[in-house]
Amino acid sequence: MSNTKTIIGESLPNIPWQDKPVGCTDVVWRYSKNPVISRHASPTADSIYNSAVVPFKDGFAGVFRCDNRARNMTLRRGFSKDGIKFEIDDEPIKFICDDPEIGNFIEGYDPRVIKIGERYYINWCNTYHGYTIALGYTDDFETFYQLENITLPFNRNGVLFPRKIAGKFAMYSRPSDSGHTPFGDIFYSESNDLEYWGKHRFVMGAKKNGMVNWEMTKIGAGPVPIETTEGWLIIYHGVITTCNGFTYSMGAAIVDIDKPWIVKYRAKTHLLTPEEIYELTGNTPNVVFPCAALTDADTGKIAIYYGAADTSTGLAFSQVDELIEYIKMNSEL
Amino acid sequence: MSNTKTIIGESLPNIPWQDKPVGCTDVVWRYSKNPVISRHASPTADSIYNSAVVPFKDGFAGVFRCDNRARNMTLRRGFSKDGIKFEIDDEPIKFICDDPEIGNFIEGYDPRVIKIGERYYINWCNTYHGYTIALGYTDDFETFYQLENITLPFNRNGVLFPRKIAGKFAMYSRPSDSGHTPFGDIFYSESNDLEYWGKHRFVMGAKKNGMVNWEMTKIGAGPVPIETTEGWLIIYHGVITTCNGFTYSMGAAIVDIDKPWIVKYRAKTHLLTPEEIYELTGNTPNVVFPCAALTDADTGKIAIYYGAADTSTGLAFSQVDELIEYIKMNSEL
Amino acid sequence: MSNTKTIIGESLPNIPWQDKPVGCTDVVWRYSKNPVISRHASPTADSIYNSAVVPFKDGFAGVFRCDNRARNMTLRRGFSKDGIKFEIDDEPIKFICDDPEIGNFIEGYDPRVIKIGERYYINWCNTYHGYTIALGYTDDFETFYQLENITLPFNRNGVLFPRKIAGKFAMYSRPSDSGHTPFGDIFYSESNDLEYWGKHRFVMGAKKNGMVNWEMTKIGAGPVPIETTEGWLIIYHGVITTCNGFTYSMGAAIVDIDKPWIVKYRAKTHLLTPEEIYELTGNTPNVVFPCAALTDADTGKIAIYYGAADTSTGLAFSQVDELIEYIKMNSEL
Amino acid sequence: MSNTKTIIGESLPNIPWQDKPVGCTDVVWRYSKNPVISRHASPTADSIYNSAVVPFKDGFAGVFRCDNRARNMTLRRGFSKDGIKFEIDDEPIKFICDDPEIGNFIEGYDPRVIKIGERYYINWCNTYHGYTIALGYTDDFETFYQLENITLPFNRNGVLFPRKIAGKFAMYSRPSDSGHTPFGDIFYSESNDLEYWGKHRFVMGAKKNGMVNWEMTKIGAGPVPIETTEGWLIIYHGVITTCNGFTYSMGAAIVDIDKPWIVKYRAKTHLLTPEEIYELTGNTPNVVFPCAALTDADTGKIAIYYGAADTSTGLAFSQVDELIEYIKMNSEL
Amino acid sequence: MSNTKTIIGESLPNIPWQDKPVGCTDVVWRYSKNPVISRHASPTADSIYNSAVVPFKDGFAGVFRCDNRARNMTLRRGFSKDGIKFEIDDEPIKFICDDPEIGNFIEGYDPRVIKIGERYYINWCNTYHGYTIALGYTDDFETFYQLENITLPFNRNGVLFPRKIAGKFAMYSRPSDSGHTPFGDIFYSESNDLEYWGKHRFVMGAKKNGMVNWEMTKIGAGPVPIETTEGWLIIYHGVITTCNGFTYSMGAAIVDIDKPWIVKYRAKTHLLTPEEIYELTGNTPNVVFPCAALTDADTGKIAIYYGAADTSTGLAFSQVDELIEYIKMNSEL
Amino acid sequence: MSNTKTIIGESLPNIPWQDKPVGCTDVVWRYSKNPVISRHASPTADSIYNSAVVPFKDGFAGVFRCDNRARNMTLRRGFSKDGIKFEIDDEPIKFICDDPEIGNFIEGYDPRVIKIGERYYINWCNTYHGYTIALGYTDDFETFYQLENITLPFNRNGVLFPRKIAGKFAMYSRPSDSGHTPFGDIFYSESNDLEYWGKHRFVMGAKKNGMVNWEMTKIGAGPVPIETTEGWLIIYHGVITTCNGFTYSMGAAIVDIDKPWIVKYRAKTHLLTPEEIYELTGNTPNVVFPCAALTDADTGKIAIYYGAADTSTGLAFSQVDELIEYIKMNSEL
Repeated sequence: MSNTKTIIGESLPNIPWQDKPVGCTDVVWRYSKNPVISRHASPTADSIYNSAVVPFKDGFAGVFRCDNRARNMTLRRGFSKDGIKFEIDDEPIKFICDDPEIGNFIEGYDPRVIKIGERYYINWCNTYHGYTIALGYTDDFETFYQLENITLPFNRNGVLFPRKIAGKFAMYSRPSDSGHTPFGDIFYSESNDLEYWGKHRFVMGAKKNGMVNWEMTKIGAGPVPIETTEGWLIIYHGVITTCNGFTYSMGAAIVDIDKPWIVKYRAKTHLLTPEEIYELTGNTPNVVFPCAALTDADTGKIAIYYGAADTSTGLAFSQVDELIEYIKMNSEL
Repeated sequence: MSNTKTIIGESLPNIPWQDKPVGCTDVVWRYSKNPVISRHASPTADSIYNSAVVPFKDGFAGVFRCDNRARNMTLRRGFSKDGIKFEIDDEPIKFICDDPEIGNFIEGYDPRVIKIGERYYINWCNTYHGYTIALGYTDDFETFYQLENITLPFNRNGVLFPRKIAGKFAMYSRPSDSGHTPFGDIFYSESNDLEYWGKHRFVMGAKKNGMVNWEMTKIGAGPVPIETTEGWLIIYHGVITTCNGFTYSMGAAIVDIDKPWIVKYRAKTHLLTPEEIYELTGNTPNVVFPCAALTDADTGKIAIYYGAADTSTGLAFSQVDELIEYIKMNSEL
Repeated sequence: MSNTKTIIGESLPNIPWQDKPVGCTDVVWRYSKNPVISRHASPTADSIYNSAVVPFKDGFAGVFRCDNRARNMTLRRGFSKDGIKFEIDDEPIKFICDDPEIGNFIEGYDPRVIKIGERYYINWCNTYHGYTIALGYTDDFETFYQLENITLPFNRNGVLFPRKIAGKFAMYSRPSDSGHTPFGDIFYSESNDLEYWGKHRFVMGAKKNGMVNWEMTKIGAGPVPIETTEGWLIIYHGVITTCNGFTYSMGAAIVDIDKPWIVKYRAKTHLLTPEEIYELTGNTPNVVFPCAALTDADTGKIAIYYGAADTSTGLAFSQVDELIEYIKMNSEL
Repeated sequence: MSNTKTIIGESLPNIPWQDKPVGCTDVVWRYSKNPVISRHASPTADSIYNSAVVPFKDGFAGVFRCDNRARNMTLRRGFSKDGIKFEIDDEPIKFICDDPEIGNFIEGYDPRVIKIGERYYINWCNTYHGYTIALGYTDDFETFYQLENITLPFNRNGVLFPRKIAGKFAMYSRPSDSGHTPFGDIFYSESNDLEYWGKHRFVMGAKKNGMVNWEMTKIGAGPVPIETTEGWLIIYHGVITTCNGFTYSMGAAIVDIDKPWIVKYRAKTHLLTPEEIYELTGNTPNVVFPCAALTDADTGKIAIYYGAADTSTGLAFSQVDELIEYIKMNSEL
Repeated sequence: MSNTKTIIGESLPNIPWQDKPVGCTDVVWRYSKNPVISRHASPTADSIYNSAVVPFKDGFAGVFRCDNRARNMTLRRGFSKDGIKFEIDDEPIKFICDDPEIGNFIEGYDPRVIKIGERYYINWCNTYHGYTIALGYTDDFETFYQLENITLPFNRNGVLFPRKIAGKFAMYSRPSDSGHTPFGDIFYSESNDLEYWGKHRFVMGAKKNGMVNWEMTKIGAGPVPIETTEGWLIIYHGVITTCNGFTYSMGAAIVDIDKPWIVKYRAKTHLLTPEEIYELTGNTPNVVFPCAALTDADTGKIAIYYGAADTSTGLAFSQVDELIEYIKMNSEL
Repeated sequence: MSNTKTIIGESLPNIPWQDKPVGCTDVVWRYSKNPVISRHASPTADSIYNSAVVPFKDGFAGVFRCDNRARNMTLRRGFSKDGIKFEIDDEPIKFICDDPEIGNFIEGYDPRVIKIGERYYINWCNTYHGYTIALGYTDDFETFYQLENITLPFNRNGVLFPRKIAGKFAMYSRPSDSGHTPFGDIFYSESNDLEYWGKHRFVMGAKKNGMVNWEMTKIGAGPVPIETTEGWLIIYHGVITTCNGFTYSMGAAIVDIDKPWIVKYRAKTHLLTPEEIYELTGNTPNVVFPCAALTDADTGKIAIYYGAADTSTGLAFSQVDELIEYIKMNSEL
């Protein structure tokens, strides 16, 4: 693929990549050797999934959801040279935090890592009298700091935008409840200082019209929004409820570059849905849960990491122009 | 198998068929190359299942439940030369309907096609302020017409009988509610004109006796009833609830030829239950859902199409005499 | 109140009546000596409510829901000279029915009595593998006959119109489920012969807009529709769910005289809601459930019988012109 | 009662008051002519309750929850000379708001009015894709302004503190879900500008220890915190779940004056629980819901307004020294 | 009433009593000055109900369920001279128990007191990792001892028989679950030593036949079985579920004198159901819950104590011959 | 592995065995040719799982849960020479029982076989007005006798200890309710005679601390406790609830040899969790359910039989010293 310049961002010539298989008409396709991270990549792990990868130095770093064999959810650090083979720590990340009231949390899960300037911010879902959106950062993937929680409980699937918008930090999140929530929409919030948040705006919700069912129950933000010439490219997950529970699929939308609560296009179809055995079976059957995306501005390549069946981590690919074109052509707000 | 003359109907020498595997003691057995219709047989499909096939001209035609990638349920037309390899339309069937109040329905699913005289009637479950039983017809599989809905909401799994009984059109259906209904019995209704329906009769219900558990939660009619010298042969689905949701299996019964609300025999066992990976995993794990049956009166062969895991379409076979004998020997009303 | 001629119907000079209290601004007001029928009006009764009264000879007759002390729901006949003091049978009505399949029902409740021509039809909710709409009639309140059930289960709150519309019998009903249904809308159906029903149309539903909450959970038809020069006057019940269960109130609408599925006006407020101790406490706290209405075409007087707390029967009054004016002025479809 | 100087606040010589009945040993006692505001104090009201009263000029003003006869929840303004007899507007308050996205809310309920400096702030629960905490203000009870919502949905029972704490606005709220929430704890949040909020802290929760059951299900802040020499006096509601739903009672606690998320004392008993017929019956049986408190710093008198059965408004009294002594003596954190 | 000799037991000439009101046709009638024990009979009580009274010395003693103002359930001792006016302790009973594993229970409720020989045994429902049947005794109502719990959790409404049957102690109980259980039948168990229990037998269950609805949800044993010449007279409670929760009524049955798991007669109607305001409203509306019965063998008088609305204690009367005759005449097993 | 003498029991040189795979670091590992008993090992079976195997003569005998094709749960006898290949009866075991009240049960499932002295006792879960713990025995696997049920309903997962403790028979069980119970802890009970049971003690419960999630919902005893020099080794199952239902895993603990209600060590991780396709898919996806264990005291070998996905039977191995060491090192009570 030639230089597209649609993605507004950095070059990433070493992005993990595999060309689309011949004959495939999908805009998102799987890596042929999935899962890239198996459930036992760390010897004490029960499962490794819903994980966040970013470019770091001449390779990649990441924060990984790693459930141990007590099924306790932990955040682990990992490194990779090629974005495919990962070394993952056997111990959870220890965050430095001034205030033990929030620093002593029991569980953290579903991390996102967002580079803003030269700092790597981390959002995750943690426990503070219910699940809420936590915020931390690291400058070197050696020392990690935890800041104030961004919201009151109950909230999940928070992810910062990769730059300030109109001078403010911006975030998506999904207000929630205390259980396996059967509802959920994406909201926007902003902040001057990453500590005090406001101007909450509804962005988009589960589809209740009876026409778009794959995301009828709830939706939640996935990877860090990708800045493009067409607006922010949002890759997210949507959930349908069958008589046998939830199925999580991947979808995408494009929102306004300056007012990210305004949805310009939203694909009415899923882009990746559980079909492979490692997505259909595992700790939670039928889950495709995107959490991170790498992009190469020179070529428009996108590599998406996603949790598979709450058990292992898969990798999928897309090409930005083709993906945006698809979203526009199949859009239904 | 020689000419049995048990089935009262037409010859179908080109019925799709595969002999029972050596050593198999089951009365219903799977086609070895299942699924016959994969989830991607149409390029925009998420899944193709719960589909209705009938002999047409020198081959076969059908109406197929095809969920698109929005998981919107649509009805599609398809043709096949051999009943195994199908060409399926990429667009939903458009029904001609005088009254937009009912003609503009959002979703149609789980079709049955019933030939009465020279006309092909179609029942399906559609949305009209809740799910109800819709009725349409075609004479040529080119032009389709929609008539009045047969029942008020909430109802599902409606299927006409293939001829009038005592001068009236006859139908089975399964009164329901607005969700993933945890109950459901089969009822009979009849009509002079296909528009006004009455004389509703209870036929048979889920088994609550603690002895026959595979159909403890609910049951629903499947393929068009098969006329035989022993009565109408009814192939249906039954549902058991485990701690992980519903499992759908196939069962069978024989009802009175003139009063189809009187059950004469009913097998207390399932005849086909999810065992293969394409039945155990998919959009809804653990589903075997029969929707159509082809029969050859000369040989007694029966070919049953069934939805597998709400994802693809499987084919199974039986022989009428053996099947009826089994039902009688294992009957419990 | 002078002769209004708004009601299209018969004179009823002996209609029970009490003028509106001075200072009262409501359009529906209670009888000051409510309840008119106490829970022990029959010696073996636990409660008497949700009952249907019609003019008969020089007084009144009725069919009453009478729960006995086993809380078994029965239908009882009663007579009254003045519409206020009733003599109620100690034994249930025995319906003559050709077909024991439907005639041997266990429970019947919530009756409506509709005079069409010289015949008194009775709708009630009875048990036939679930609750459904039953139909019977009497010519003399001595002998009662039962006809075919009108619908499949599950359905409740069925009531016929008091004359044919465009040559067909017409009915409202409320499709339901098998429990204490948390949803429910009013539908229209019609029939040539009172046995076969079709052309089902949605009429109006529970209000889900967040603005009209007293009927947010479900609604159901109440007394026989009242024909007026403005259209059919529909008195119905609506239900709100609080953290302590359901509250039933009385509302009203006006529908098209020829197409009764078209709502012309619908008051967005309740007209009578539980406020008196006999409505707030009893077998089911917080229930006002209108079931019958007497009208005098000469004066426009309306007398409404309603169940109070599933325990006793209350009486309320309205004046047709004032009521219609109120509905129009407070209408929200 | 003599001058106690325990309350840090203003004099209110005209506080509504009634001495404790002879022989009464309770620390909170009812006004003998309750309810002070009946459900029909406004002609179009269904009910008036959960209302907020403050001293204003030489009398009192307030914002009242007034459900109209559609059971639509509205906020109404009212005035009173003596705090007992109120004139309540027939129309909802119209808030001026720059941004229709939040200004066009459907329902507002359960208001609190908080005087900070010379301005009267109003918190209420409103609808913005779910219930959330709204904020408005007025300087004169003539013109009302609405500001940004304080939190994302889902949240209820928000109430500001009556002055800044350590230079920041402070608030209690109760994170919630989208239904009749069966859980709920009180949290603290703070802000520099009333628009952006953070530093969220858990304050106290429902009691799950099996010993203090009246508040086992959920709790929520009530009137504006009362500043005293012992700390902030918090009057709140607690909920127990019986087989027939929720019962709301009144409780009290004392929290740290500078760090209001630190609870110093908390009475383990309720102080007022539904016993009177206007508390036991009504729109929601068994509700005592305190929403506002007047105090006289000279005498230590406290007058508490509380919603009764979601129907009318009651008034109760206490004396600050006796109340604080009781909380301390019966404290269990 | 003359000497009937139907009751096999002791004389109790000072039994509290009030003759049946003139015109009353019920077999159980209320004391005209109910409630005999008000919710505030002890100054720190929230409510006093579901209580057990026995003859003691020249008056009466009892163990009372007394919820304090934290709604914590406690057992309190009380004495009465006439069975109508009671002195109730302000502190819970302290049981002496060798094993703190069971002796340190958090809550005890719904006691029954059973005199076997000269010892007074007490059954109650207590907390031991769930609710279970506790057992204690006293010889003098001064010192109380606790023995081993009779059953594993979850169980409620246990009551011993007043003498050994075929040489073994005998008990009724109601297996349950961990919440507001929506099911429940009465079972029989026996023991040689009051510590090890076995030979469990089903006695009778909730009525699911659709004809006897007042006890459709669950039933549970009430007062100590009364020995008569006709068998054991069992007074119990039954529960119906309405859309607004549970309603508890009183019923009665007669079981075999030697095999108390064999039901001989069972009245299909309730004998006392919530009708009075102190039964219809209170902590739990609509509860009549019998817990104790006094009998006079000389006259056949029965005095029944019952909890009213989980708030106060009522007293009702019956005459043994009339009651037994009624049960026989209205029996349905 | 050399002679460890940690297990206090008999030699079993022919224990089925397979050494741990090279590189495997788990303390429990699967047999490479699982499942050892397929769902169709008996021609009329739907599934065979949750089964109990003991040494018998020169081979092995067992009682197997075999659901037939009606999904009716039955107990079947089986024999094996090597513990891997089994011959299973086609008909259920017929128990001789003096009392048809308990002997005529509808379903029996999840058996355990316990050798005490020379007698083989069988616990299972059977239906007696709800599920309860049944008890039977055989001396020769030819004739089977049924004794009194051990507990009232509702109870499951009962298993006797293999010898008396302090002179009494001892048992673990899991009090339950009437559905797919979402809670459950292990309790201890004891008896002099196997008929009357008492001295009930709590042993250990589901983990609610948020740190050990794999057993957060419920736990239940598995194979017969294994006597060791360190205490009783308890292998049990634990359940986690995901949005798609329950997942069953295997865990282990060590309890006091004389007071088996005192837990000394309890591994906080699962030891075997669904990972293989025959565990992840089947009648109930995601189930590993241990029911029996063979031990060889000479070598410390343990062979564990476990149900896989409620469909087939798997075999896993462990070595006692390594297992005990692991439990101690990873213990959290």
